[in-house]
Amino acid sequence: MRCRKCGEKAVINMRQHKLALCSTHFLDWVPEQVERAIKMYHMFTHNDRLLVAVSGGKDSLSLWDILNRLGYAADGLYIGLGIDGGVNYSVNSLLYARTFAQEHKLHLRVKDIKAEYGETVPELTIRTHRGRYKPCSVCGLTKRHVMNQLAHENEYTALLTGHNLDDEAAILFGNTLSWVGSYLIRQGPVLEADRPGLVRKVKPLCRMYEREMAAYALLRGTPYIHEECPHAEGSTSIYYKELLNKLESDRPGAKLSFYLSFLQARRAGLFSSSADERAELVHSCFKCGQPTSAPGLCAFCRMFVKDEYHLVLNELDEL
Amino acid sequence: MRCRKCGEKAVINMRQHKLALCSTHFLDWVPEQVERAIKMYHMFTHNDRLLVAVSGGKDSLSLWDILNRLGYAADGLYIGLGIDGGVNYSVNSLLYARTFAQEHKLHLRVKDIKAEYGETVPELTIRTHRGRYKPCSVCGLTKRHVMNQLAHENEYTALLTGHNLDDEAAILFGNTLSWVGSYLIRQGPVLEADRPGLVRKVKPLCRMYEREMAAYALLRGTPYIHEECPHAEGSTSIYYKELLNKLESDRPGAKLSFYLSFLQARRAGLFSSSADERAELVHSCFKCGQPTSAPGLCAFCRMFVKDEYHLVLNELDEL
Repeated sequence: MRCRKCGEKAVINMRQHKLALCSTHFLDWVPEQVERAIKMYHMFTHNDRLLVAVSGGKDSLSLWDILNRLGYAADGLYIGLGIDGGVNYSVNSLLYARTFAQEHKLHLRVKDIKAEYGETVPELTIRTHRGRYKPCSVCGLTKRHVMNQLAHENEYTALLTGHNLDDEAAILFGNTLSWVGSYLIRQGPVLEADRPGLVRKVKPLCRMYEREMAAYALLRGTPYIHEECPHAEGSTSIYYKELLNKLESDRPGAKLSFYLSFLQARRAGLFSSSADERAELVHSCFKCGQPTSAPGLCAFCRMFVKDEYHLVLNELDEL
Repeated sequence: MRCRKCGEKAVINMRQHKLALCSTHFLDWVPEQVERAIKMYHMFTHNDRLLVAVSGGKDSLSLWDILNRLGYAADGLYIGLGIDGGVNYSVNSLLYARTFAQEHKLHLRVKDIKAEYGETVPELTIRTHRGRYKPCSVCGLTKRHVMNQLAHENEYTALLTGHNLDDEAAILFGNTLSWVGSYLIRQGPVLEADRPGLVRKVKPLCRMYEREMAAYALLRGTPYIHEECPHAEGSTSIYYKELLNKLESDRPGAKLSFYLSFLQARRAGLFSSSADERAELVHSCFKCGQPTSAPGLCAFCRMFVKDEYHLVLNELDEL
């Protein structure tokens, strides 16, 4: 297999694009594709203040690297979730994030959940009995809360995450299997800051396959944490990814076409705007001030109040 | 495994319903479920004139049998497509349909495409170069045309097909992968007769799994054609069925929940009515008078005009 651009030996063949490239041209091609997505979906410009959520994995570190190469100034945010899982997961992933920031002279903000809130995410999960002792639900809630709060307080105008096409297609697949309208309607490369206190969220890697991002990190020589989060094992999203990979291997391009045709259908007006229930629910959390879907405390702050206090708040709210 | 109703040995375990039944109770349960669907989706009443499209397979013959047991008077329609495929497919399937009708003293109408239009479906496919020599597209077009025309001319008020849940879920899956709005919006247990000349189409088996229908035919002792249509091999719909079966075996009930949550989301207003492009396109075919999406001849009648005549018609149409 030869590189389409120079005829040298190709290192990757992207069947969905019918495109094989050598290392040099692949490392040029990836940022070009990301820049195209940034512009196509009007994600941000060079005047925005950007914050990248960095986990220490290949996607977020590569995203930060690509932004840097494209000349976008972006700070990083690492959230210490306190996950050990027998592999020292959080400690190691912070190390990768710090190393990357130091080597590229970038500013990494670090927020440690235990230091800030007194408990790690697994501890919070056990105490609050949320998610049947799988911390994934508390973890997602915590990350969304902390990311948005920090971005808002520090006046970032866009919050970037490293979701790749495989992530997005798996989320879309799950949302489609259950046909939850409010999720379907809001999924996409850009989540607008449509309530006071929310920061615009964007996913510049949404058109990049996971294997392209793995190849990019490898060829750029970026050290990253190879382990998946120990709690992700057996998760629904991994199951959907496997199913979609089966589809992709039988029909190259199926994942990309599934996601892009969804975006196109939505843009063309497939969904009724009245189906977005979330739009009508605008409240501010009593405690943190962030937007929430119900009056009182937001789901994150509810984890930190005693039951009696919470009842009082609910009663006050009903008056 | 014991029957939930009587404790006798069960012949089938329906994991998605957490229900095991013996032969007697399963043979009662199936018509009850079908009757529920008929009422739930307001498909038809005992006052309707019903026509069942009968292929000679387990689904359509069982549907006819169930209707008969439920006291709905329904005629059958067999369309002779002229498919041989080395297994004498059409000849044999007609035999099964005739035998069933005779044994149950039901009226079977037979329409032979070759006798009526001069060519079999495979012959039409080759001459018209439609569908890359796979007759499935011509076959679908022909069946829709003939079924509707005959039902309309004979004043039937509902046209029933034997689509089961596996069929419906596979169609929905395909429509979802490509996000074709007009297909998504119209898929369901009932296709209203929303244009003059169209007969209401209903799918009373839409909640029944394929394996339930196979078990029903077997236990009722209904002889049916076991072969799939020889042209179906390698088809997209069979591929999607396999993928959904994988999902179902890992998560019992996934297929049913996928289909039902789609119907519920649609009923709740997920889709914008403006996305149904088809609604605006109401024309009558010059030749057969059936509704069609473009002015001139319908897709079926276009197969039988010479190219020059067709050009003239198009030119006339542009004046």
